[in-house]
Amino acid sequence: MDVWHLLIGRPLKAREAESEEIGTSEGLAALSLDALTSVAYGPEAIALVLVGVGAAGIRYLVPESLAIMGLLAILVLSYSQVIDAYPQGGGAYAVSRDNLGINASHLAAAALIVDYILTVAISIAAGIGALTSAWPALLPWTVPLCLVLLAIVTWLNLRGVGESARAFLLPTVVFIVGLLAILAWGFIHPHLAHPRSPLPAAPRVSLFFLMKAFAAGCTALTGVEAIANGVPLFRKPRQLRAKRTEWLLGILLGTMLIGIAALTIRFHLVPGGPASLLSRVMTASVGRNWAFFVVSLAIASVLGLAANTSFGGLPVLASLLARDRYLPQAFAIRGDRLVFERGVWVLAVGAAVLLVAVRGNTQALIPMFAIGVFTGFTLSQLGMVIHWRKSKPRGWRLRAGLNSVGAAATGVATILFIATKFVEGAWVVVAAIPLLIWLFRRIHQYYERVGRVLGVDHLPDPVAPLPKPLVVVPVTATLTEMTRRALSHAASLSDQVIAVTVIFEEPADSMSVRDREEQLQKTWATWNPPARLVVLRSQYHSVVRPLLRFINTLDRQATDRVLVLIPEVVPDGLPATLLHNRLGSVITRALRRRTDVVIGTVPMHFPPGDRT
Amino acid sequence: MDVWHLLIGRPLKAREAESEEIGTSEGLAALSLDALTSVAYGPEAIALVLVGVGAAGIRYLVPESLAIMGLLAILVLSYSQVIDAYPQGGGAYAVSRDNLGINASHLAAAALIVDYILTVAISIAAGIGALTSAWPALLPWTVPLCLVLLAIVTWLNLRGVGESARAFLLPTVVFIVGLLAILAWGFIHPHLAHPRSPLPAAPRVSLFFLMKAFAAGCTALTGVEAIANGVPLFRKPRQLRAKRTEWLLGILLGTMLIGIAALTIRFHLVPGGPASLLSRVMTASVGRNWAFFVVSLAIASVLGLAANTSFGGLPVLASLLARDRYLPQAFAIRGDRLVFERGVWVLAVGAAVLLVAVRGNTQALIPMFAIGVFTGFTLSQLGMVIHWRKSKPRGWRLRAGLNSVGAAATGVATILFIATKFVEGAWVVVAAIPLLIWLFRRIHQYYERVGRVLGVDHLPDPVAPLPKPLVVVPVTATLTEMTRRALSHAASLSDQVIAVTVIFEEPADSMSVRDREEQLQKTWATWNPPARLVVLRSQYHSVVRPLLRFINTLDRQATDRVLVLIPEVVPDGLPATLLHNRLGSVITRALRRRTDVVIGTVPMHFPPGDRT
Repeated sequence: MDVWHLLIGRPLKAREAESEEIGTSEGLAALSLDALTSVAYGPEAIALVLVGVGAAGIRYLVPESLAIMGLLAILVLSYSQVIDAYPQGGGAYAVSRDNLGINASHLAAAALIVDYILTVAISIAAGIGALTSAWPALLPWTVPLCLVLLAIVTWLNLRGVGESARAFLLPTVVFIVGLLAILAWGFIHPHLAHPRSPLPAAPRVSLFFLMKAFAAGCTALTGVEAIANGVPLFRKPRQLRAKRTEWLLGILLGTMLIGIAALTIRFHLVPGGPASLLSRVMTASVGRNWAFFVVSLAIASVLGLAANTSFGGLPVLASLLARDRYLPQAFAIRGDRLVFERGVWVLAVGAAVLLVAVRGNTQALIPMFAIGVFTGFTLSQLGMVIHWRKSKPRGWRLRAGLNSVGAAATGVATILFIATKFVEGAWVVVAAIPLLIWLFRRIHQYYERVGRVLGVDHLPDPVAPLPKPLVVVPVTATLTEMTRRALSHAASLSDQVIAVTVIFEEPADSMSVRDREEQLQKTWATWNPPARLVVLRSQYHSVVRPLLRFINTLDRQATDRVLVLIPEVVPDGLPATLLHNRLGSVITRALRRRTDVVIGTVPMHFPPGDRT
Repeated sequence: MDVWHLLIGRPLKAREAESEEIGTSEGLAALSLDALTSVAYGPEAIALVLVGVGAAGIRYLVPESLAIMGLLAILVLSYSQVIDAYPQGGGAYAVSRDNLGINASHLAAAALIVDYILTVAISIAAGIGALTSAWPALLPWTVPLCLVLLAIVTWLNLRGVGESARAFLLPTVVFIVGLLAILAWGFIHPHLAHPRSPLPAAPRVSLFFLMKAFAAGCTALTGVEAIANGVPLFRKPRQLRAKRTEWLLGILLGTMLIGIAALTIRFHLVPGGPASLLSRVMTASVGRNWAFFVVSLAIASVLGLAANTSFGGLPVLASLLARDRYLPQAFAIRGDRLVFERGVWVLAVGAAVLLVAVRGNTQALIPMFAIGVFTGFTLSQLGMVIHWRKSKPRGWRLRAGLNSVGAAATGVATILFIATKFVEGAWVVVAAIPLLIWLFRRIHQYYERVGRVLGVDHLPDPVAPLPKPLVVVPVTATLTEMTRRALSHAASLSDQVIAVTVIFEEPADSMSVRDREEQLQKTWATWNPPARLVVLRSQYHSVVRPLLRFINTLDRQATDRVLVLIPEVVPDGLPATLLHNRLGSVITRALRRRTDVVIGTVPMHFPPGDRT
C-alpha cells in the first residue's frame, strides 16, 4: 500500500458507490448548508453598501432584507416546481439542455463552474472569518488557516464522503438552533449595556444605491437550488420530502436574515473591521460567553461543510460535460475511491488561487459571487416555463406563471448585479463565463476531429496483414547480456535484424574512431549473432540524434516496416534509478515523440536478482 | 532550438574540445587564482583567532604569517617535484592511486570533492564580501548576491569555458599589481590620520592557541597544488613553465600575506565587523578612492574566477571516479557542450546549500576548509616519497627527503586543523569524508554485481532462437482505428494474438456487466479480426490492475513468450496532452515496472493530421 492509498483509503468496489437515502433533516444538513450559511456574509454585504452614505444608511437594512425575503419566497416556490418536474434531479445544466438547447446549457454550465469555485472560496473564507472574529489572535494566520481548511475538505472529498450526510447533522443542528436562540435572546433580553438613543433619520438615497445594496444581499440566496438538484438522494416519497426540505430551508433562512437585520438596528451596529457583522450581533445579544463560542465554532464548521457541498457538485457536472465531450475525458474518470478526482483538484486549486488573491477576505469575493448563481436561477426558471408549455399538465398556466415571475425576478437581479458590481470584481465572472463557453466548444471540435480520425462511430476497416518488420536494435558498444536478450527477441520477430550503435570521438581519446569501429565489427563477427551491426559515427556527444536520423531514413527508404526493439534498464528503487543512465528510456522517449515507428522495449530489472 | 540550448549554446563537436596551451602568465591566471585569492580570507582568519585573547593578541600576526610562509615554501618545493614526476598532471587522486593504493586514493578523492565544494562556497562568499566591504549598502543582499554569482559561474561552466584562460588575465593583473601597489603605498606613505602610539605588549598565550591561529592561516595555502595538476595545459617545455609558475605563485602569495600582516599591525587594525580585514588594510593605505574601488572590484572578480577553477576540477575528478565505477555512470557523460554536466550541478547545488546555511559568511566556512586540502597535500607528498623510493632516479634521496618534510608538515597541519576546529565545523568534513568513501565502495559493489549479471568482461552467450511470441493487445471497448493498427502490427509478429479489454460496473449504469460483455463479443465477431477477445470484469474502477493480473498469469502459465503490444496516444503539444487520457502510457509504465514481458507500443500522434 503506497502513501497515496494510505491517505485516501483502500480502493472501493464499484457497487460500494450506492448512495444512502436521506430524510428531511439529513437533507437540510447535506443540501442546504450552502444556502443557510450565507447568513454569515449576506447581511454584512448589504450593510457594507448601506453605510457607504454614512452610518445612518444602516436604517435601510430591514427593508432591504424584506425585499430579499420576497425574492427568496419566489425562488422557493419556483424550485418546488422544479422538484415536481425533475424527480431525477434538475440542475440548471440538465433543465436548460432539455428545454433551452445546447447554447443555454453551456451558459448554465459555465456559470455553475464559476459559482462552485466561488462558493468554496467564500465558504472557506467566511468559516475562517467566523473563527478569527471569535478569536482575534488568529487574524494574522487567515490565509494559512483558509488553505488548511481547504486542504482538509479536499482530502475528505478525495476519499469520497458519500456516507457523511449523517455526520453533518450535529454541527448543522447546533448552528440552526444555537443561532436562532441567540437571535431570539437578543430581542427578549433588556440589555442595559447598549444605548437606546434613536438612530439618526435615514438619509435620502438614490434608487440605484438601494438596488446596489439589494444586489449585494442576493448572495444570501445562493444555494437554494441545491435541494432541487439532489432529489434522487431522498427517501421515498422523494418529491414530497425534497419539497418539505426546500420550504424548511426558506423559512429558516428568511427568519435568520430578518433577525440579523433587526438586531443590527436594535444594537446600532455598524459593519467593517476585523470581526464579522454576524459575530458582532451575537456578541451584542449574549456577550462573549460559552454560547457565543460554541455557536461561532458551529458556524465555522458548517461553512466548511458548505464548501463541501460544492465538491459534490463541480466534479459531477464536469464529468457530465466530459461525457458530452465538452471537457477533457479525464474529468469523466472515477479514481480508486470512485470520485471524479480531476474535478476535485480543479475546484481545490481554483478556490486556493482565489483565497490567496483576496487574502481570505470574504467581502472581496462577494462582487464576483451570485452572478453565476443567478444566471443559473434564471436559466432554470426559463427552462421550466418552456417545460410547462411543452408538457401542459393540469394547471400548467399557473405553474408557468410562477416560474415566469421567478425568471423575471432573478433575471433582473442578475443584470442588477452585473451593473452595480462590474468594476468591483463582477467583470472577472463576466469575462470568465464566455471564455469557458469558448473552451467547451474548442474541446468539442477537437474531439470531433479525433473521433473522425479514429472512426468511433463505425466498425474499423478489416485488419489487413502487414509484412514482417525490419527490426532495429540499438546496442551499446560493450556487448552484454542485455544485448543478447534483445537480439534473441528480435530474431523471434523477424529474420531481418539490424543492430546499431553510436560511437563518438572522446576529446582526449587514445584510439581513433575508425579503429574502434573496426574493433567493434571484429568482435561482432566473433560473436556472430543473427544480425548485422551498423556503426554510426557522431561528431557530437549525442547518441539520440544520429539514431533518430538513421531510423527515420530507414523508415522512409525501406519497403519493410521498421520496428525498433530497445533494451531498457528498469530501476527498482531510488539507488538503481540514480546509478543507471537509462539511455534506453531516453531513446524510447525521443523515438516515440519524433517518429511513427513501433517501439518495443526489452526490460531488464535492476538491481538484478530481485525477480526472475 | 529549445530554451536550454539557447542558454548554453549550440552543441559542440567532439574535436572542438581541444584545449589551448598556455604560458606562465596565463597559467597564473588559470591555475593560481584559488591560491592567490586566499589572501582575502586567510590573514583575517588568523587575526580573528588572535584577538580572542584581546586586541593585543594581534601582535602575533606577523610571526604567524612568517610560519605560514615557511610552510608555503615547503609546499612550493614539494610541488615542483610533483611537476617533475607527473608531467601528465599529478592530482592527489592520481598520485595516491599510483603509489599508495586504492584506499588512499579514495581518501584523496573524498577530500578533494569536499574541498572543491568548499572552495566554491568560500570564494563566492569572499567575492561578495569584497563587494559589500566596498559598498556597505549591499550588505543586506549578501545571500542573494552570492547565489546570483554562483548561478553565473555555473552557467558559464555549463556552456563550457575552455577558452577563457586569456579572459582571466585582465582582472588577475589588476588584482596582483593593484594589491601589491596598495600594500607598498601603505608602507611608504607617511599617513597622518593613523595613530602611531605603540601597541600594548603581546599577551602571554599557550602554544595550542598559537597553533590554532596557525591552522586557521593554513587556509591561505589552499590551491597551491592546482598548477601541479594542470601541467598538460602548459606550452612546451611544460614542466619548466609549470615550475616557473609555481615559484611565481609562491613569491606573490608570500609577499601579499606578509604585507597584509605587517600593515594590520602598522595601522592598529582589528578584524571583525561588516568590512573584511583586507578591505580595511586597503582603506587605511590609500583611503576610499578610485584605486580602492578598482582593486576591490578586481578582488571580487578574481574570487569569482577562483570558484570557476573548482568547476574545472570536480566534474573531471567525478568523471574519473565514475569511469572507475565509484560514482554513478552519469558523471562520466559529457553533455552537448562536452562538459560533465552532472558534476557541475552537484558542485553548484552543494555550494549553494553551504552559502545559504552560513548566510554568505566566509569566516563561518573557514573551519571546514583546509582539512580536505591538507589531506590531499599529505597524501600527495607521501605518494611522492613512495614514488622516489620505487623509481630511484639520480638524487632521489634528497627529493624523497624534501617530500617527506612536506608530508610531515602538512600532515601535522591537518591534525592541528582537525583538533583545533573540530567543534566549530571541522566535524562536518571529518564526517563527510568517510561517508563519501563508504558511498564509493557501495556504488562499486553495485556495479560489480551488475557487471557480473550483464557479463561485461566476456562475450555474451550466442543468441538463441526464441519461439514466436503470444501477442496481447489491450484494446478499448470502443473499436477504433488505433485498435485496428495495433492488431495489424500484432498479426505481423505472431499468429497467436489475444485482444483484451476491461469493463467495470458504473455506479449508476443502465446496462449490466454481463450484457455489455455479450454485446462486445458480438461486435467483435462481426468485425472478425485475426485475434480472439478476452473481456476482463473489474469490481474496482481500475483498468491497470486486472490487466496486470491477466498478463502475469499468462506469462507464468503459457509455454509461449508473452509480448504486449499497446496502442498509445502520443500528444504533440500541451492541448493534446490535456485532452487525452493516455491510458496506454499508464498501462505501459505499470507493465514495465511490474513484469518482465517485452512491451511494444504502436504510437499514434495527436492532434491527428500533423504527420503522416
